Amino acid sequence: MTTATRKVKKEIPAHEARAEAQRIAFGPVLFMACWTMQRKGLFDLLFKAGTEGITQMELAAESGLSPYAIKVLADMALTSGVLHEREGRLTLTNTGLMLATDKMTQANMDFVGDVCYQGMWHLEEALEAGRPAGLKVFGEWPTVYRALAELPQHVRRSWFEFDHFYSDHSFPPAMDIVFASAPRQIMDVGGNTGKWAISCLRRDPKVRMTVVDLPGQLVEVERNVAKAGFADRLTTVTADMLDPNSRLPEGADIIWMSQFLDCFSEDEVVAILQKARSAMGPNTSVYIMETFIDRQRFEAASFCLAGTSLYFTAIANGNSRMYRAEDFKPLVERAGLRVAEEHDHVGQGHSIWRCVRA
Amino acid sequence: MTTATRKVKKEIPAHEARAEAQRIAFGPVLFMACWTMQRKGLFDLLFKAGTEGITQMELAAESGLSPYAIKVLADMALTSGVLHEREGRLTLTNTGLMLATDKMTQANMDFVGDVCYQGMWHLEEALEAGRPAGLKVFGEWPTVYRALAELPQHVRRSWFEFDHFYSDHSFPPAMDIVFASAPRQIMDVGGNTGKWAISCLRRDPKVRMTVVDLPGQLVEVERNVAKAGFADRLTTVTADMLDPNSRLPEGADIIWMSQFLDCFSEDEVVAILQKARSAMGPNTSVYIMETFIDRQRFEAASFCLAGTSLYFTAIANGNSRMYRAEDFKPLVERAGLRVAEEHDHVGQGHSIWRCVRA
Repeated sequence: MTTATRKVKKEIPAHEARAEAQRIAFGPVLFMACWTMQRKGLFDLLFKAGTEGITQMELAAESGLSPYAIKVLADMALTSGVLHEREGRLTLTNTGLMLATDKMTQANMDFVGDVCYQGMWHLEEALEAGRPAGLKVFGEWPTVYRALAELPQHVRRSWFEFDHFYSDHSFPPAMDIVFASAPRQIMDVGGNTGKWAISCLRRDPKVRMTVVDLPGQLVEVERNVAKAGFADRLTTVTADMLDPNSRLPEGADIIWMSQFLDCFSEDEVVAILQKARSAMGPNTSVYIMETFIDRQRFEAASFCLAGTSLYFTAIANGNSRMYRAEDFKPLVERAGLRVAEEHDHVGQGHSIWRCVRA
Repeated sequence: MTTATRKVKKEIPAHEARAEAQRIAFGPVLFMACWTMQRKGLFDLLFKAGTEGITQMELAAESGLSPYAIKVLADMALTSGVLHEREGRLTLTNTGLMLATDKMTQANMDFVGDVCYQGMWHLEEALEAGRPAGLKVFGEWPTVYRALAELPQHVRRSWFEFDHFYSDHSFPPAMDIVFASAPRQIMDVGGNTGKWAISCLRRDPKVRMTVVDLPGQLVEVERNVAKAGFADRLTTVTADMLDPNSRLPEGADIIWMSQFLDCFSEDEVVAILQKARSAMGPNTSVYIMETFIDRQRFEAASFCLAGTSLYFTAIANGNSRMYRAEDFKPLVERAGLRVAEEHDHVGQGHSIWRCVRA
């Protein structure tokens, strides 16, 4: 087994386990303390102070927060390994440094804070009902995809920053993989904001793109592609992949599905891949880009993916998840496809599978 | 420095710090997953399965949850060190064992889940305004103490179980300390549900108790003391310690304040201790029992106390906290008292200070 999550690890002793359990128990409180410290600029001040450090009174004066507010936040950070204190001066630990400066940590914090925190309260209901019961904190929609265009601006921003953080790192190497076969016609199923389409159109002036998505998203795709100056090589197709009568157009050399199938349940994934199969010619490949829990180099990455699964449960749609490759491959096969090529560790932990008709 | 939090610890390497930061970022999600697993009986099933383990399908069948629900919860638990998996069978790690069986962990989880989770969302507002802005998730009250009698039953239960878990372990040793001087008249300021009063009345048939609290709580104190058969040795006194005109009655040998002063801001603590001082005779002692962040044997205990501080900020009253002894002693002195005796590590990390007129 190559996966981080399958290693049977050395067991920690009971007193450490007890401490670990308390970190889980007070996890929401620790999160809110750190997120608040980020948002109020305290981590920035601490970062600027460097190894010199900064006093609580200086933090209060510079942030505008009360000495009481600084004290309770600092106590939380000091007892959780986020800050050090020496002779009354606070400095960031390595963990604090990540919270202060690391872009992935920032994207994760804002995603959990803005998109997940309140809705996660309804996790139990979501698990019991198979519905995204937490989405109601934002309004009444059946899934987050229907809601996306109407979510509050800061929620939308955190959603896309999370989404794009991961795809931004994967798109350049992914493009090398996809363009190796010099495709002329690429169909992007689940085109999101058009980022991938624009990258492809920019990369090769002879390539044509077809983007398939829900109407709300296609408006944005068209606007963004037009702004980039590539409208003449774009076709958009409105289709709801959950509609049993929907079809995908034929004629593509490559069908691209990036971080798309994780938005669906196992049966839905099979049905969508069957639609793809029906649209495939003899030389068409389906490229699936996903982040698989069991194909990560770092345990922390598997952990974040498993956490993201619960976002799907509680907020997105109630029935999808970040898959394990071992669970996902049988779905590809059930759809009458087979995996012809596998690439792991693309960008931030993505895998790309080239699939052909079985 | 004897305190766990003051040790400058060995710095963890960057990749571990990055993992640690992600655990903070997804902390609310991990919490909700584990709390749900507790509440739905999954940890009980895993505990019963012992080292044999149990499959995901068996967990689904026995809990009534869907295979999908079990899978997303199990992935979260597997990637966070709560569960092990071997040949398709899940077992609890030591951390999982704590979540499944440890009473303190249970009390902390229910407290954070039922009392804190939703209100903690308003932490930033609470810190800025100095008001318990999160209390509004339950209704409109100025402080949680005014709300306590009217909170939803399950919230009230989790609040008291948290409170009592810690005091239950400290009351027996605390009683030995307090009764060493053979007091005849004890005044309990902030009598809560009457637990301490009943313990004292039971311990010594010659002791008389005066309990001071808000009217709502005194009803419960009187009922509980009467039920225990000690009504004839109880006096109750209604007083709001925040009212500048309130006074404490004279004549007590011992004035007892247990986990009471942490409910107040620094200036309020001084004002209350001044009221106590005015009520003291030449031989009266004030016994203060608190959990001080900087007097804990275990770092995890300091961490839980710092987390509890943020409950005070966001939900209880907006301006109090679990104190550090180093911050608290000056308050005692400002009130014209001095600490004559100190006991640390009483029960679950309590300290008891005997204070006399300076």
